[in-house]
Amino acid sequence: MIHLPSTLPSGDFDPGSSALLTDLYELTMLQAYYEHGMVETSAFELFFRRPARGARNFLVAAGLEQVLEYLEHLHIRAEELQWLADTGRFSANFIDQLGRLRFTGDVDAMPEGTACFPDEPVIRVVAPLPEAQIVESRLMNLLHFQTLIACKAARAVLQAPGKLLVDFGMRRAHGAEAALHAARASYLAGFSGSSTVLAGQRFGVPVFGTMAHSFVQAHASELQAFERFARSHPHGVTLLIDTYDTEAAARKLAQLGPRLAREGIQIQAVRLDSGDLADHAFKVRAILDDAGLSAVRIFASSGLDEFMLHELLSVRNAPIDGFGIGSAMDTSQDLPSLDCAYKLQEYAGRARRKRSEGKATWPGRKQVWRRHDGDVMIEDILALEGEAVGGEPLLHPVMRQGRRLLGQPTLQQIRDRCSVQLASLPAVLRELAPAAPYPVRVSPGLRALADQVDHDQAGAPP
Amino acid sequence: MIHLPSTLPSGDFDPGSSALLTDLYELTMLQAYYEHGMVETSAFELFFRRPARGARNFLVAAGLEQVLEYLEHLHIRAEELQWLADTGRFSANFIDQLGRLRFTGDVDAMPEGTACFPDEPVIRVVAPLPEAQIVESRLMNLLHFQTLIACKAARAVLQAPGKLLVDFGMRRAHGAEAALHAARASYLAGFSGSSTVLAGQRFGVPVFGTMAHSFVQAHASELQAFERFARSHPHGVTLLIDTYDTEAAARKLAQLGPRLAREGIQIQAVRLDSGDLADHAFKVRAILDDAGLSAVRIFASSGLDEFMLHELLSVRNAPIDGFGIGSAMDTSQDLPSLDCAYKLQEYAGRARRKRSEGKATWPGRKQVWRRHDGDVMIEDILALEGEAVGGEPLLHPVMRQGRRLLGQPTLQQIRDRCSVQLASLPAVLRELAPAAPYPVRVSPGLRALADQVDHDQAGAPP
Repeated sequence: MIHLPSTLPSGDFDPGSSALLTDLYELTMLQAYYEHGMVETSAFELFFRRPARGARNFLVAAGLEQVLEYLEHLHIRAEELQWLADTGRFSANFIDQLGRLRFTGDVDAMPEGTACFPDEPVIRVVAPLPEAQIVESRLMNLLHFQTLIACKAARAVLQAPGKLLVDFGMRRAHGAEAALHAARASYLAGFSGSSTVLAGQRFGVPVFGTMAHSFVQAHASELQAFERFARSHPHGVTLLIDTYDTEAAARKLAQLGPRLAREGIQIQAVRLDSGDLADHAFKVRAILDDAGLSAVRIFASSGLDEFMLHELLSVRNAPIDGFGIGSAMDTSQDLPSLDCAYKLQEYAGRARRKRSEGKATWPGRKQVWRRHDGDVMIEDILALEGEAVGGEPLLHPVMRQGRRLLGQPTLQQIRDRCSVQLASLPAVLRELAPAAPYPVRVSPGLRALADQVDHDQAGAPP
Repeated sequence: MIHLPSTLPSGDFDPGSSALLTDLYELTMLQAYYEHGMVETSAFELFFRRPARGARNFLVAAGLEQVLEYLEHLHIRAEELQWLADTGRFSANFIDQLGRLRFTGDVDAMPEGTACFPDEPVIRVVAPLPEAQIVESRLMNLLHFQTLIACKAARAVLQAPGKLLVDFGMRRAHGAEAALHAARASYLAGFSGSSTVLAGQRFGVPVFGTMAHSFVQAHASELQAFERFARSHPHGVTLLIDTYDTEAAARKLAQLGPRLAREGIQIQAVRLDSGDLADHAFKVRAILDDAGLSAVRIFASSGLDEFMLHELLSVRNAPIDGFGIGSAMDTSQDLPSLDCAYKLQEYAGRARRKRSEGKATWPGRKQVWRRHDGDVMIEDILALEGEAVGGEPLLHPVMRQGRRLLGQPTLQQIRDRCSVQLASLPAVLRELAPAAPYPVRVSPGLRALADQVDHDQAGAPP
């Protein structure tokens, strides 16, 4: 057991860039690998397992850009190395080796925005065993979260075609990086943008904002609050109208809107944030239309998710033009984690396989081939790398010898790809209701290798 | 709409320390506040709302240390300010004011580790309106997550008295900060430690580790893997025994253990990670005991949460000594977010109240008083600050004029406090089954103020 007091101020460097953001067992295994000279080439693959109860009909691969950045810059800072040495848990030799550790391996991966399915490798890491091992924890931490959110966001996008969808989840996202990466992942999956300002600065995600109840409350009257806010932002504001009484506020706007319009000040939208959103939307729409404010859009928020979008839009036909989606998306509320694994598939030229109960894996380096019927994807085939299968290969080289290859897509290109992917899904998979699993077949070559590995393992020394 | 490409490399500074990690509406409101001279003193309070379906019988306040650090260092970096200016969305005056913005206010809060309940303010921020407003998003982001996790962890602690509980959730936590803060929050709630190395270095959380399947798979045989790992860490290793066949692996250890023991190499524990954990534990315990290895502990992981702990320990009496708890805790799987709000309760000396449907708040600056019967807490009273109520006041001064007060507790002291708090909960609240809500009464003074605010508001100009 290591137990030392904190020695570094949790100051200014990004914890996500620290090589110590890993599980202790990665380090203890590394020491053993180095001691026994186990530094030959290994191949690890990361895949997702099927969510329970058909909670997802498809996944959307995301987070690769952050993984590549992490791998390219992997190193242990001097003060971190010193801290490790001070724990007394590791040998001096090992501390030296850790200090020199960089990631020098190759990575193949599905491009971000690709629709993918359980058991398919979304990334393959080929590197000397210690390098491929130590990155396991952070690589999963990065890919799991953005994939989770991109998938949740895509489900909302499919329920609200043509609507403005904005990520409002920062405050209840699980920390700083979650907020930032949820904004990125939802944007690439088709959201219009996010309320998180830093996501605009870091990733170029479009940033949207309205106003809070506190602004209204801080004023002597609601009308004064609306007028002041509009005058401060004359080129189109969204006013929050539920602080006291939604319809009463809409009637105030019916007076204020035309008056401001004559001065060239534009009210772009109103926001509803409580009560029966469809009911309020119908009433507010009527009030605004009667006042000649049919250009003013209605924006809604408050506990929304893809199921609520379906209810509001497809069942109740509510006249709502845009939605702020918060906690339910940023925490993937109905499914806050996906089961996933980063498994050793080959070491020193020999294929490997885990056979734990209910958790067996397919051995060897793999490729995923996708077949289409016209524009619609109809099946994927899990095959050995190099096996001639046909179709579209989904894993592509993205890093060689620790350096990113040129030509990585921009966030906009990723978003465009995702849009095409979602449109290519079989119709039944685009629905919220659990569908029969998309067909993912296993190639004859892969089955033969699995049998061979099991046979060798059965005959291995105890 | 702001839409600019990213200009800063997402390099080395912590996104959690950025003042741009906020919702856009905070900035648009600030511009309006400054333009209209609305910089008088405001009081905001953060409270949680009751979780649906009685999913939590109590909450555990956590995350205050990170909030105070954030407030103390709040400023906008020059390059961030430039980026904001370049968006063209804000006035030059406002950009200047933002550049000078620091947090100069006062904070009162419940100490971390305090058991608390819905509707109780856990923190009060008193500051000039723009300062108290801009910190809203990040302050909620920080307090919400650690409170969520501390509460989830405390439920597990109460189900497993005397057992070793270790946070294993880094890989599926929602990003870097979530992993780090989940390790801190679960430790303060009574976990023994975490597998996340960086939590050891940053917070002094004890760090625990075992081994992964890949280590076993990388070797020609399981026995060789066990022996090498033990020789690399002779002072007590935990060996993972489910890679191929759990009981077969235990029988290999029955041979290996005594042999290594003669050389002074100690096997501390075995880890089970798949299948029926109770069934495996009984069989493995018998195999180890028969081999004279009764000192070897059994440690279990794989999809565990507080409900599983109850099943394994209280229902099945499984001989398991320790548990690794991962995704279910780090994502608070059954309840991945709490409803919470940071609301304006007073501005320029006047109490304020939001009355939105189903989301009304109590006005004014408040204090929470707790009454005990012997060692057991029996009711809390929500009162106005300064109202004479009696009992133990839960909100304490922690920051004045933007500086932390001396005497903030260490993580160990917070953990000790939490332990006492959990022991003081009424017995029925310590159970997993939803209990009748803990009594939180509203004082006469607070009721009178709410009536007064409603009355004033009703008579306010439209």
